Amino acid sequence: MSFEIKIKNTAILLMHCPDRKGIIADATEFLVKNLGNIIDLDEHVDPIEKHFFMRIEWELDNFLIPREKIADFFAVQIAAKYEMNWELYFSDRPVKMALFVSKMSHCLFDILARHQSCEWNVEIPLIISNHDDLKHIADQFNIPFYIFPINRENKQEMETKEIELLNKCSVDLVVLARYMQIVSPKLINKFANRIINIHHSFLPAFPGAKPYHSAYSRGVKIIGATSHYVTEELDAGPIIKQEVTHVTHRDNIDDLVRKGRDLEKIVLSRAIYEHIKRNVLVYKNKTIVFE
Amino acid sequence: MSFEIKIKNTAILLMHCPDRKGIIADATEFLVKNLGNIIDLDEHVDPIEKHFFMRIEWELDNFLIPREKIADFFAVQIAAKYEMNWELYFSDRPVKMALFVSKMSHCLFDILARHQSCEWNVEIPLIISNHDDLKHIADQFNIPFYIFPINRENKQEMETKEIELLNKCSVDLVVLARYMQIVSPKLINKFANRIINIHHSFLPAFPGAKPYHSAYSRGVKIIGATSHYVTEELDAGPIIKQEVTHVTHRDNIDDLVRKGRDLEKIVLSRAIYEHIKRNVLVYKNKTIVFE
Amino acid sequence: MSFEIKIKNTAILLMHCPDRKGIIADATEFLVKNLGNIIDLDEHVDPIEKHFFMRIEWELDNFLIPREKIADFFAVQIAAKYEMNWELYFSDRPVKMALFVSKMSHCLFDILARHQSCEWNVEIPLIISNHDDLKHIADQFNIPFYIFPINRENKQEMETKEIELLNKCSVDLVVLARYMQIVSPKLINKFANRIINIHHSFLPAFPGAKPYHSAYSRGVKIIGATSHYVTEELDAGPIIKQEVTHVTHRDNIDDLVRKGRDLEKIVLSRAIYEHIKRNVLVYKNKTIVFE
Amino acid sequence: MSFEIKIKNTAILLMHCPDRKGIIADATEFLVKNLGNIIDLDEHVDPIEKHFFMRIEWELDNFLIPREKIADFFAVQIAAKYEMNWELYFSDRPVKMALFVSKMSHCLFDILARHQSCEWNVEIPLIISNHDDLKHIADQFNIPFYIFPINRENKQEMETKEIELLNKCSVDLVVLARYMQIVSPKLINKFANRIINIHHSFLPAFPGAKPYHSAYSRGVKIIGATSHYVTEELDAGPIIKQEVTHVTHRDNIDDLVRKGRDLEKIVLSRAIYEHIKRNVLVYKNKTIVFE
Repeated sequence: MSFEIKIKNTAILLMHCPDRKGIIADATEFLVKNLGNIIDLDEHVDPIEKHFFMRIEWELDNFLIPREKIADFFAVQIAAKYEMNWELYFSDRPVKMALFVSKMSHCLFDILARHQSCEWNVEIPLIISNHDDLKHIADQFNIPFYIFPINRENKQEMETKEIELLNKCSVDLVVLARYMQIVSPKLINKFANRIINIHHSFLPAFPGAKPYHSAYSRGVKIIGATSHYVTEELDAGPIIKQEVTHVTHRDNIDDLVRKGRDLEKIVLSRAIYEHIKRNVLVYKNKTIVFE
Repeated sequence: MSFEIKIKNTAILLMHCPDRKGIIADATEFLVKNLGNIIDLDEHVDPIEKHFFMRIEWELDNFLIPREKIADFFAVQIAAKYEMNWELYFSDRPVKMALFVSKMSHCLFDILARHQSCEWNVEIPLIISNHDDLKHIADQFNIPFYIFPINRENKQEMETKEIELLNKCSVDLVVLARYMQIVSPKLINKFANRIINIHHSFLPAFPGAKPYHSAYSRGVKIIGATSHYVTEELDAGPIIKQEVTHVTHRDNIDDLVRKGRDLEKIVLSRAIYEHIKRNVLVYKNKTIVFE
Repeated sequence: MSFEIKIKNTAILLMHCPDRKGIIADATEFLVKNLGNIIDLDEHVDPIEKHFFMRIEWELDNFLIPREKIADFFAVQIAAKYEMNWELYFSDRPVKMALFVSKMSHCLFDILARHQSCEWNVEIPLIISNHDDLKHIADQFNIPFYIFPINRENKQEMETKEIELLNKCSVDLVVLARYMQIVSPKLINKFANRIINIHHSFLPAFPGAKPYHSAYSRGVKIIGATSHYVTEELDAGPIIKQEVTHVTHRDNIDDLVRKGRDLEKIVLSRAIYEHIKRNVLVYKNKTIVFE
Repeated sequence: MSFEIKIKNTAILLMHCPDRKGIIADATEFLVKNLGNIIDLDEHVDPIEKHFFMRIEWELDNFLIPREKIADFFAVQIAAKYEMNWELYFSDRPVKMALFVSKMSHCLFDILARHQSCEWNVEIPLIISNHDDLKHIADQFNIPFYIFPINRENKQEMETKEIELLNKCSVDLVVLARYMQIVSPKLINKFANRIINIHHSFLPAFPGAKPYHSAYSRGVKIIGATSHYVTEELDAGPIIKQEVTHVTHRDNIDDLVRKGRDLEKIVLSRAIYEHIKRNVLVYKNKTIVFE
């Protein structure tokens, strides 16, 4: 039995704008008068930034505005009035997700197992790696695997080819599943807020390389994992999910790595889940996650 | 330094009703047209019960409807249309909270320390106990302490007097802070969804007496605490908060009791916090907690 | 890169007996005088049962007693004196683990991914199921898959064949990875304290069928998973590991199932880890887990 | 009812030394031959440092060596052979604990409540503060309160007086219960590994001032608290305990402070508990906590 997700015929609006009176009333009125049944509404006002955020999901059955015109109507009737940033998604459209991996298999296995079990409404058109170590897993799950043996000299050229390939496959979302390369600004800007990374520490503690070694040296009593959107500053992008687990003096570095792997794969997969459910808004290097 | 809460000039509406289109639009429109600035809106639809829940908090400065008329206007213009159950609160009005205790002091100390530090906007007009063991703590914090030495014979008579006393002090909320007596239906009905109890297990595991002993016997690897509203069925009322902690074979019953105390006091105080912030709605023996 | 475990040349003694003075001194002296370097010693005294438990791991390099004679020597020189129950294991000998599955794939994927990555020193000679739904996964990972379509009528006969097959494959450990059949006493007794099950609740809450539905109905604020050894009483065997996660009123049954799956696979795999590391002792329906 | 701790007639040895064969056998033999009943033994070998750590607790009833000679005998018969660092404690001797506070009351209340309930075998001869804000709480609990209004000019002179006072009261342990002053090396060295501080972040993230503000700015999804021994480098001493809690975009800075307070008081009190139970060894800026 797969966990087949029930694909719903709904639309989702993510919006944010400077806070003003009447936004909720106007936005909900827009949907109600067009016979949209709201099944989820979450809003948040950042009290310091005086900024308004909202996610609305509504059923498209009986909705008077046809799919292809919703964006236009919303833009004119609501978004313009409040100077909104907004995005519109349809739940039945699968997200096209590319995976970047290196040598560690645990996150890759976790994602492919969920994909094969139909836990998520995603397509995985390709896996990209700088090594061939995990090719056999891609084969096992029948996903095309491309090797780009990036080094200092060829980095720019390789990434250009990667971007071409991502475009060709119409990729919406890039997931760095323990990818051990720093992604260049070109790729980051191409996929702004659409590259998810897993870092193996509770950021901002222990950014960069070998966080478990640093955690061991410091003698911390908890270790963690952090999933975040990738920005140009290393391990400093908007955080989506964090989890931790307790460790003791008995845990050596191998134990931290072992316990950490379980955190990493869960925290990465949960970030993917929130992203593809369109629960996440990004503003000024922080996320709003409407779980 | 006390943690003096900033008392806000806001009103809060808690409402629930059968789900229908347009409730959010209507309710927010009601506030906006009267110049109420919404600072928090949380809604939830129970997809099985098809029932709608909402909490709205808005600023009263500049609100066109005077305080004493808000209830009338909302009842007529909104609530009637949707057959709502609803409650209206004002943030600047302190909650009058009575504490019931027996012999354990940790929850009592935790509550009184928060009260004295002005962490909560509450008044504590009295503490009621069936023993005199904790009277010195009430004295230390200058709270009137009343002893009702309840036994099987005098229970009804004693509770009648307790209710009189609670009424005389205009008590809004009763907190059973490790009170080792079963409260009778008369008191429960008088304070429906306004009596909070702390039970020292992760319910529904280990209801009733001596849960730590049962947890020890069963060899569980986690213990917990549960705060809930009191209903006639013992330890079966709507759950507000639960927390757990890990234990091992090294923890004997005294260790479980010791670790559990820390959970109990935090879980009880968090339930009080959510209640007095008017974040909690109760429906069919479950809570909606809009944190 | 796989996480290849470093296979150590060590022996492990698990022992328990009525508590008496001198056990530790005698047992350690036995190893030291034979030039065994102790790399781990954990002991526990149950203060109520007055029972002593110990796990010792020592290096076999330079150890004077040859492998095949350690058991004899220990039995005569130490175990007899204290009327010990004891077991001897060698770290370099892989555990032979059979998996029983039904229709849910998440635990199976998690175990097979760890196995393929050489995270554990185990062999998986076979997977047994009462359905063919997961056969493709067994194929994907090249593990023999046997279908025993058990029903009320053929249960005894089928289990007899299963036991024959387990014996033929020299299976040490049976893992019920969301196997939706009740295992009969015959199999349980054959593999006493060597059948690990994952139950999808924080036991003793919600034993039996459909625990997420029960959790939803009760309105709990935490859900959990429990791995335990199987005994004749359903979901009442010695608990090895438990983990929980927070849920809210927003989580419907599908959300509980989704969040619970992540708990289940991690809690089951951690129990397997502790078992195969020989960290677990069982006594009177409780475990001592020397992590 | 107080939680009166059962004061046991036991001795505790904490020891560490370079790892060698035979230490456990020798040390346990030393106790057993003198008729000491070991009720707890925990050992740990740091595999990188090749360093051995052990805590042994045994009953003094019937122990052949009188209390005042145990140290001598152990030094000569065991410690010298292995070049041990070691400490000897008696469980029935209360720890004399001084509290340093500033303006925040939550940790102070938590400690004094536990003290008054006899949860710990400690005496609190004095509270020291740089402000008079919390004097009323000291009065409420009948603990002498001393104000040292430290500023840049008088710091050295004031600390000298504080040390005199601590000596006069035979203080064993100093607890900084949200004390908002940096303690000078003189005091730190005087009480090496005997000053416990609570820092309001999951160190090493957010050391120094205003960690909740930093956590809010960074948009972390977990906040934490860390108790540690104070060393000359700010917030960099050996960590004893850490706990975290989840936060969301809905939590503003006041919410982080509020949720953090509950963590801080629990994490500080747990560190005190482990210290006074003599469960903690310090080696090279890390702790071994034998829980």
